[in-house]
Amino acid sequence: VRASVMRDKQLVVDTVPDPVPGPGQVLVKTLACGICGSDLHMLKHAEQMIAVGERAGQGPPQMDLSRDIVMGHEFCAEILEHGVNTSGSLKPGTRVCSMPIAFGPSGVGAVGYSNDYPGGYGELLVLNEMLLLEVPNGLSTERAALTEPLAVGLHAVEKANVGERDVPIVIGCGPVGLAVIAGLKLKGVSPIIAADFSATRRAMASRMGADIVVNPSDISPYQRWEEIAVPPGLDLGNPMVAMMAADQIRPGVVFECVGVPGLIQQILEGAPRAARVVVVGVCMEPDRIEPIFAINKELNLQFVLAYTPVEFADTLRHIAEGDIDVDPMITGKVGVEGVAGAFEELASPDHHAKILIEPWR
Amino acid sequence: VRASVMRDKQLVVDTVPDPVPGPGQVLVKTLACGICGSDLHMLKHAEQMIAVGERAGQGPPQMDLSRDIVMGHEFCAEILEHGVNTSGSLKPGTRVCSMPIAFGPSGVGAVGYSNDYPGGYGELLVLNEMLLLEVPNGLSTERAALTEPLAVGLHAVEKANVGERDVPIVIGCGPVGLAVIAGLKLKGVSPIIAADFSATRRAMASRMGADIVVNPSDISPYQRWEEIAVPPGLDLGNPMVAMMAADQIRPGVVFECVGVPGLIQQILEGAPRAARVVVVGVCMEPDRIEPIFAINKELNLQFVLAYTPVEFADTLRHIAEGDIDVDPMITGKVGVEGVAGAFEELASPDHHAKILIEPWR
Repeated sequence: VRASVMRDKQLVVDTVPDPVPGPGQVLVKTLACGICGSDLHMLKHAEQMIAVGERAGQGPPQMDLSRDIVMGHEFCAEILEHGVNTSGSLKPGTRVCSMPIAFGPSGVGAVGYSNDYPGGYGELLVLNEMLLLEVPNGLSTERAALTEPLAVGLHAVEKANVGERDVPIVIGCGPVGLAVIAGLKLKGVSPIIAADFSATRRAMASRMGADIVVNPSDISPYQRWEEIAVPPGLDLGNPMVAMMAADQIRPGVVFECVGVPGLIQQILEGAPRAARVVVVGVCMEPDRIEPIFAINKELNLQFVLAYTPVEFADTLRHIAEGDIDVDPMITGKVGVEGVAGAFEELASPDHHAKILIEPWR
Repeated sequence: VRASVMRDKQLVVDTVPDPVPGPGQVLVKTLACGICGSDLHMLKHAEQMIAVGERAGQGPPQMDLSRDIVMGHEFCAEILEHGVNTSGSLKPGTRVCSMPIAFGPSGVGAVGYSNDYPGGYGELLVLNEMLLLEVPNGLSTERAALTEPLAVGLHAVEKANVGERDVPIVIGCGPVGLAVIAGLKLKGVSPIIAADFSATRRAMASRMGADIVVNPSDISPYQRWEEIAVPPGLDLGNPMVAMMAADQIRPGVVFECVGVPGLIQQILEGAPRAARVVVVGVCMEPDRIEPIFAINKELNLQFVLAYTPVEFADTLRHIAEGDIDVDPMITGKVGVEGVAGAFEELASPDHHAKILIEPWR
């Protein structure tokens, strides 16, 4: 079966062995699969990702880099055949989404970050039947394939426990930031402030539901927050006043959606007093912070990862019901031959949010 | 009036001008004043503290280092005389505590970190009448002087929103850690795990209410947490299991009470999945973290500072009513001549927690 394969730090198109569904598993055909920022990082820094993953408690590495890896964990697929110990309740031909996790005899595996469980950059996958979610009739495959990245945004918003009085500030409007904006919009929070240096991305942010988009070169998003959240005449420069008047101020909730070193410190410096900071961007490198900034403002930092099974299913339902419009995020489609080129385009991401791979092309 | 004065990065005993109470202010005599870790830091790194304070939004610096500064913000005092625009409801001779804040014509000042508002290292202070709290009859001056540092611990516990199922882990048993233990004990949380390399400090931690004290050279405090918090047989090494079984695990709440670079990263590495980390230690220097550790475990970091006026008053009341026994923390007393020596002793803090200054001696 054909796939875009990660081999010797390159993406090459080659034929790989057909995956075989084990007990409880189902063989599916990839219909569409998104390219994630983590995949870009993986191609360049695989050794480092594996090493830090092991140190950071992800368990023993599931990737042997001397062997082929087929990435891709944001997919919509079609059922081809069932392995043993399956119920077959969803028939062949049914379109499905799934969390990118597989259970097998060798334990839990990450689909797309594993030698054993190829991802959606290839024509065929195996998935666990118990995790399959049927794509509702009428929902396009492309939109369904956005379930995984959107679930990340919904999860971040859930963990932030955002309420009506909060004023969210989304830093970075790549796919992660756009997903967070979708999650905030779904919660009915308003206004949503979003910041990005790229005009294209700011336009996408608006289409996804951001109410105020800011180019940080022109104006600080925290300045915007202050205009909205702080009653006129209140002197925030006086820490005593700021503390005593806390009830009159709409709390700031800052979403870090960039994931590069230095961003967290930038937020510690810019965020308003008592802000909650939700770190959604995945910074793989060591970072430098000055804790005193966070201390003086009593900031709260919530680091988040992925989503729960319920959030994943809810996300698919919300997309199907039109509560979330993911179309602005889909900026390109390629076959397996186009994956390496798509990675290059995404490295300078001004024009794209999500490029979908259609390996069957 | 006599005081231990910070002058040219040294502590010297000298006579300083008597402070004069302004409108709404009261002149008081210092009865006892504790030495805080921040004071130690101030003596060595004043320029840096002022610079970072200004950058970190504390407002314009209130300290001119070319002029004398009398430190001391953990005091119990006796009312001597009232300035204009005071009610005089508390008579001269009344013992009082106060948050170390003063309001004057030049704005809000920090008592003990200001050229205008000398602290308790000297014989006389001015305080704002509206912040005075009468020391309840029968409560010793020494114990009352511990109100300020204990309020820091109670505030940290409040911000952590600690509940019955939580298992707290206190990292560092200096004055801050001991105050946090007192706050946890007051909340009825059990068991309280406390870690320190010093046997003396571990003994103090036990006396303050820690149920399990750990020497990190022998056993990790997180290992202790796991023995208590995780049902036998549950494999935390498997992230999927750890996530799915979250309800069966008693949450870990880690209190960082050391405040030196590297400590936060150490906690990110050691803390259990989904732990709340409360940063009470005040690290003034830049620090290095690896965000991926916090991301993979979805940690929450709450940075805290000081206390609210209500928490300060509650702390004094709890000490007076015997809910908190602060005696184990009082390990020495000196007059103004002894302050420089006390700073040296506290620099290698194995034998001491809190040394009280009695400037009237």
